[in-house]
Amino acid sequence: MSYISIMTDFGGPVGVMKGVIWRIAPEAKIADISYYISPHNILEGALILDHQAFYFPDNTVHVAVVDPGVGTHRRPIAAQIGPQRFVGPDNGLFTPMYERAERNHWPVQIIHLDKPEYWLPRVSNVFHGRDIFSPVAAHLANGVPLGNLGTPIDDPARIPLPAPQCTDSEVIGQIILIFDNFGNIITNIHEDDIAGLGEVKIQVGGVEIDGLVRTFGERELGSLVAVVGSSGYLMIAEVNGSASRRLKASIGDRVEVTSRS
Amino acid sequence: MSYISIMTDFGGPVGVMKGVIWRIAPEAKIADISYYISPHNILEGALILDHQAFYFPDNTVHVAVVDPGVGTHRRPIAAQIGPQRFVGPDNGLFTPMYERAERNHWPVQIIHLDKPEYWLPRVSNVFHGRDIFSPVAAHLANGVPLGNLGTPIDDPARIPLPAPQCTDSEVIGQIILIFDNFGNIITNIHEDDIAGLGEVKIQVGGVEIDGLVRTFGERELGSLVAVVGSSGYLMIAEVNGSASRRLKASIGDRVEVTSRS
Amino acid sequence: MSYISIMTDFGGPVGVMKGVIWRIAPEAKIADISYYISPHNILEGALILDHQAFYFPDNTVHVAVVDPGVGTHRRPIAAQIGPQRFVGPDNGLFTPMYERAERNHWPVQIIHLDKPEYWLPRVSNVFHGRDIFSPVAAHLANGVPLGNLGTPIDDPARIPLPAPQCTDSEVIGQIILIFDNFGNIITNIHEDDIAGLGEVKIQVGGVEIDGLVRTFGERELGSLVAVVGSSGYLMIAEVNGSASRRLKASIGDRVEVTSRS
Repeated sequence: MSYISIMTDFGGPVGVMKGVIWRIAPEAKIADISYYISPHNILEGALILDHQAFYFPDNTVHVAVVDPGVGTHRRPIAAQIGPQRFVGPDNGLFTPMYERAERNHWPVQIIHLDKPEYWLPRVSNVFHGRDIFSPVAAHLANGVPLGNLGTPIDDPARIPLPAPQCTDSEVIGQIILIFDNFGNIITNIHEDDIAGLGEVKIQVGGVEIDGLVRTFGERELGSLVAVVGSSGYLMIAEVNGSASRRLKASIGDRVEVTSRS
Repeated sequence: MSYISIMTDFGGPVGVMKGVIWRIAPEAKIADISYYISPHNILEGALILDHQAFYFPDNTVHVAVVDPGVGTHRRPIAAQIGPQRFVGPDNGLFTPMYERAERNHWPVQIIHLDKPEYWLPRVSNVFHGRDIFSPVAAHLANGVPLGNLGTPIDDPARIPLPAPQCTDSEVIGQIILIFDNFGNIITNIHEDDIAGLGEVKIQVGGVEIDGLVRTFGERELGSLVAVVGSSGYLMIAEVNGSASRRLKASIGDRVEVTSRS
Repeated sequence: MSYISIMTDFGGPVGVMKGVIWRIAPEAKIADISYYISPHNILEGALILDHQAFYFPDNTVHVAVVDPGVGTHRRPIAAQIGPQRFVGPDNGLFTPMYERAERNHWPVQIIHLDKPEYWLPRVSNVFHGRDIFSPVAAHLANGVPLGNLGTPIDDPARIPLPAPQCTDSEVIGQIILIFDNFGNIITNIHEDDIAGLGEVKIQVGGVEIDGLVRTFGERELGSLVAVVGSSGYLMIAEVNGSASRRLKASIGDRVEVTSRS
């Protein structure tokens, strides 16, 4: 059984990619990870892919299309990163996965996709998701070895992933994702970063939040709460409301966690 | 062949739940019922799930995540309700299905999910959809007996489902769902409730509609029409327009159907 | 292996159609082509379906539901059009596919679906997508011959597809699709229409664009560019911006491509 996921910034499902995949890999099971990445937002796509990809069966092929440089000199690539495989543009979209591999001492193999025999016969300059990435993913799902698809590289593009500054008494980070639907704010501060601070207060958007709660329902409706989100990062939420709207939050806004002890 | 549906209020697909399912149940076929339930709106989720679930193959496992109380004392549950199976929070989300079972004298078995060996090893307090409900659904799809997954209960949470008031000459109900895309309004008045009234007029939002039509196209563009919707409930629509916008409709607004005879 | 695609104007996934299909065709693999067609916009649905359907495996069944006349005298139909199959309302939604067949001298067989034994037992007047089109698609996927499902017709409904006016020195066309997510504008001018013009300038929305580029990244951020889109039609885009917002573009707006030589 072979699995393929698709993540794009297209704003809706684009079934044509599934059609292309099934022509080549008739048995592949395909899931959308998201098609709501903000247009051209490589950092957002990178983080969301990293939060989801490693829950899939081993050797799932994740096709990721956040690709403002489509058709230019940016390379199309495919990569084996530990237990998962990725196909997409070489624009930094896989940076968190490279860092995850480094933390876990996983093997990484990255291939510049330069063999058109694994693509559709006719390639549009504006939709490599359909014409290069989907067919390559299907061939990978079929068992074609990664190395056959192109030329090994060891200099993939990376984007800066903002890291928090940590001292013994405080951690200074920033807002890194905003989930519009619930208005929840995700920071780049991991629960491990603040584990040593004891009791804390959190400052964000001119507001101070007293301590972390275990889950939303521990404070009354309308309260701002700080909680560890589902990927292990500090999250700010309004109970049954929208923290992002209340705080007029933007990506990059400063978040401070300070020890009370 | 095993089937799983997913319904959430997340506002977009969340592929990670499919990844979790496929790691445990590699063959499961998965469909999204909806991910556009209004955030935290248990009534809306309950109604839409009830309108769709029973069209699926028998023994489909329906994972439903409208879960404002995630991580609090609300129980995670799974249930066999007649021919279908459901997994989600015990917050009333399955109320219409319990009532449907009672009307049809179906057997119902409800299990409090209290056996972590069927969950992911690490459970976030804010995303039981990924960490509890998806793995439990996959184990059910694999054939694990419902009773193995936890402890039987007979006091599931229920929410009030507003019922219309019926007399010989009129039925007074309310708006219960609004489909934003077309602007169609669904009421809680079933076609059976008004079958004995003969010719009728409908009053809603200060407007009177003369009689029911069989379908939209029977009146001219821009007309307000009353029609029996696809789940058997009275629906108000504007032909090729938006009834909800025209009537400034809100959930709970009064709808009166009165006999003309 | 059998494949079914679904395209609707419902604004979100409607899993119930997949449930209906799987009850009849348990093995079918199903993909959403789109559920974001503008409500009741037959032309938009027709174009998007034509751009995607032929990338699917041969004999995929494409269920298309943009159906303002549901429940009226408009016929439900199914068709074999060259290598692909289609099921939906007879309202012109398949016009570009008929024209594609004529250009390619493909055989076409069109059936008026008038045999209720292939539908759900109870048919709503407002949701033939669930009650007629999905079960018919599933029976087709199961191998039921097209001709068994109803009565052959040769007068399917067509909609006008606006064609550009071409001379030796210019092509006058119009805006035919707008992709809101990126703000890209698709015209009805095919790359073949302008192949003989040499160097060109493009006029749209009171703005003149100098020449075609090969892809977005060849001009600087914020530039308006003209490029051949992924379906072979002239596209106007703003590099990392929204051409539709900048030009206040509407469907039908005039687009002129003029030779510079």
